[in-house]
Amino acid sequence: MVNIAILGYGVVGSGVGEIIYKNGQHISERVANEVNLKYILDLRDFPDSPYADRVIRDFSVIENDPDVQIVVETMGGVDFPYDCTKRALTAGKSVVTSNKELVATHGCELLKIAKEHGCSYLFEASVGGGIPILRPMTSCLAANELQEVVGILNGTTNYILTRMIRAGLSFEEALKEAQANGYAERNPAADIEGTDACRKICILSSLGFGRHIYPDQVPTEGITNITLADVAYARSGGYKIKLLGRSIRRESDGKVCAYVAPHLVADDSPLANVEDVFNAIQVTGDSIGDVMFYGRGAGKLPTASAVVADVMDIVRNKGKKVISWEEGGPDTVYSIDEVSSQWYVRVTGDFAVDGTKRLRNGDANDGECAFITNEKLTLPQVKAMTANMEVKALYRVL
Amino acid sequence: MVNIAILGYGVVGSGVGEIIYKNGQHISERVANEVNLKYILDLRDFPDSPYADRVIRDFSVIENDPDVQIVVETMGGVDFPYDCTKRALTAGKSVVTSNKELVATHGCELLKIAKEHGCSYLFEASVGGGIPILRPMTSCLAANELQEVVGILNGTTNYILTRMIRAGLSFEEALKEAQANGYAERNPAADIEGTDACRKICILSSLGFGRHIYPDQVPTEGITNITLADVAYARSGGYKIKLLGRSIRRESDGKVCAYVAPHLVADDSPLANVEDVFNAIQVTGDSIGDVMFYGRGAGKLPTASAVVADVMDIVRNKGKKVISWEEGGPDTVYSIDEVSSQWYVRVTGDFAVDGTKRLRNGDANDGECAFITNEKLTLPQVKAMTANMEVKALYRVL
Repeated sequence: MVNIAILGYGVVGSGVGEIIYKNGQHISERVANEVNLKYILDLRDFPDSPYADRVIRDFSVIENDPDVQIVVETMGGVDFPYDCTKRALTAGKSVVTSNKELVATHGCELLKIAKEHGCSYLFEASVGGGIPILRPMTSCLAANELQEVVGILNGTTNYILTRMIRAGLSFEEALKEAQANGYAERNPAADIEGTDACRKICILSSLGFGRHIYPDQVPTEGITNITLADVAYARSGGYKIKLLGRSIRRESDGKVCAYVAPHLVADDSPLANVEDVFNAIQVTGDSIGDVMFYGRGAGKLPTASAVVADVMDIVRNKGKKVISWEEGGPDTVYSIDEVSSQWYVRVTGDFAVDGTKRLRNGDANDGECAFITNEKLTLPQVKAMTANMEVKALYRVL
Repeated sequence: MVNIAILGYGVVGSGVGEIIYKNGQHISERVANEVNLKYILDLRDFPDSPYADRVIRDFSVIENDPDVQIVVETMGGVDFPYDCTKRALTAGKSVVTSNKELVATHGCELLKIAKEHGCSYLFEASVGGGIPILRPMTSCLAANELQEVVGILNGTTNYILTRMIRAGLSFEEALKEAQANGYAERNPAADIEGTDACRKICILSSLGFGRHIYPDQVPTEGITNITLADVAYARSGGYKIKLLGRSIRRESDGKVCAYVAPHLVADDSPLANVEDVFNAIQVTGDSIGDVMFYGRGAGKLPTASAVVADVMDIVRNKGKKVISWEEGGPDTVYSIDEVSSQWYVRVTGDFAVDGTKRLRNGDANDGECAFITNEKLTLPQVKAMTANMEVKALYRVL
């Protein structure tokens, strides 16, 4: 029998409980071992849960119980989860989490502690909810040198952009609708300002390229400035606006540039057709070319099923499932100023700019125009090109 | 050091050699062991290959060399690969293959032999080329009861259909173009008649649902009868025609129905936007909902990189990576006649049929019409509905 403890019985934590309760026999058969939920750490009580009698308040009970082999951390936040995770790993207990902020901030250190204590630290659910992405990157694509990871990593912003594109809602209207439907928090900052996507691209970069990329090394721009005018100009050129997290490995020196920003994505790209709250992550390797992983990037049961898959992996491998990456630092990354792209530019005035493709927008205000550069340019180059214009929007084309 | 032997140095086999040669150091670091290509079994010589001196003609040299731990079988066909695979596994050597026909026909038996001899039989490359699909199904989605697997499993037919839809080529013209571009064999039967997709859905079904489904249990229809009229009618209703392999698990008794047939797929479905030679596989689980895996379903390096990933997995797990499923039989499957769908029907004459949605096609011949049923019907039901019509095309709507 393998005993697990769940820290935090909120949306994802209670989803883990629900899956273990419902699919318990199936799970136990698959791993040839009985998986038992021994403790739930939470400040609340859950009298209607079949696990009502497992709820405790004191983490040290779990830490000091030698029969607990696996700790599921689904609390959110950083400080307390960080403390609990270190203590669990140090006690030789494997930890599974969906906590992207913690992994993005302290993943390298926690992986090292796990390795030193012969246990596992896994976090498939921290990126893309239930979409299998981290495990395929480390196993199925292992024969490849990875070159780029890019994706729609945040379902809330993708829902908002989809509603702007399809229903013509303004950003504010679409945000309100997302909140009404439960797709956005009352305080939506972490989503709409790109913070959530930033944490996820940190984890993808670290795993894909082998050195920790920290959130403060990732230039991050959200979607709050995108207007319906931008949406219409993009459509006229055959593009959709999507918020992408992107990480590129430079061949010459192995350095990485990761960033989060809105992009124009061509309609015939698979990423352009990822709508509503769905996420998709595209990985490019030297042998495999592009592969894409698509599904619901959030939600109780999808995310919980990814947590349970990690738990099962640990049971099967008796805690010896090791993933790791090296510590990062200033020399891990190169500047986003060196990344060339075509650019979408919206400016005040009616310019005819050489070397660009003018976009049309039937609803546009007179007195402004938008175009896409023909050439790939760096940010300093496009800034030089538009130096004497009043630039109202500037987005990369993927 | 781990020694491997490659059986058959054709497209995929030589791709495996190329990846080991090019990424050898990277691969050895990842698995903390040196991977050495010791033998190539082929009737031809490869004087320009860096491995020219490893070519042998006699499989028993490999079988009897205790230093060979892993055999890569990339020959194609069934009889000789079946014999070699049994002998290798019986000698305790793990086997990796891209041979879908062999796995679909004898997978259950070969997995059993591998288990008995403490070694592995892996075949990620047999479905979806380089797309990670089998490993995510068994690990990442392990907490789910799977309900359905459906996908575009054959790149050749998807290319032909894409050219019919986008360029208005007839089936025959598109096939010729695919052959000229190297996407279709001179004898294209296995692709266009659905045989290749049939083998792949057998493997996906067996792995996903736990009992072997054999090719002769899978009703299989290819794309040779699809006309430009069907393409145009489908477009007018907001659909694309795609050849799908599909496998559905029935909740009530756990039986499975797998089949291959052209379907009308709604334009806003992710599968509709999978074009050219790309493949995509959508898996539905009880917790995760739908996830989709997308990429190049064939090609030398993508497929070879999946083979090498299996080799690395075996090295990491010292041959103890076990997947398995139960033997199948007549009671494993239920009849396709029990699967309900909406239907696309094209008939001679100009009928107004109650309970259907009429499709329009500006180029259509007078004297025929097409419609989609409003209700989901079984095949016997739709046949009863159209009993007094001359049916020219009948496809399910996904």
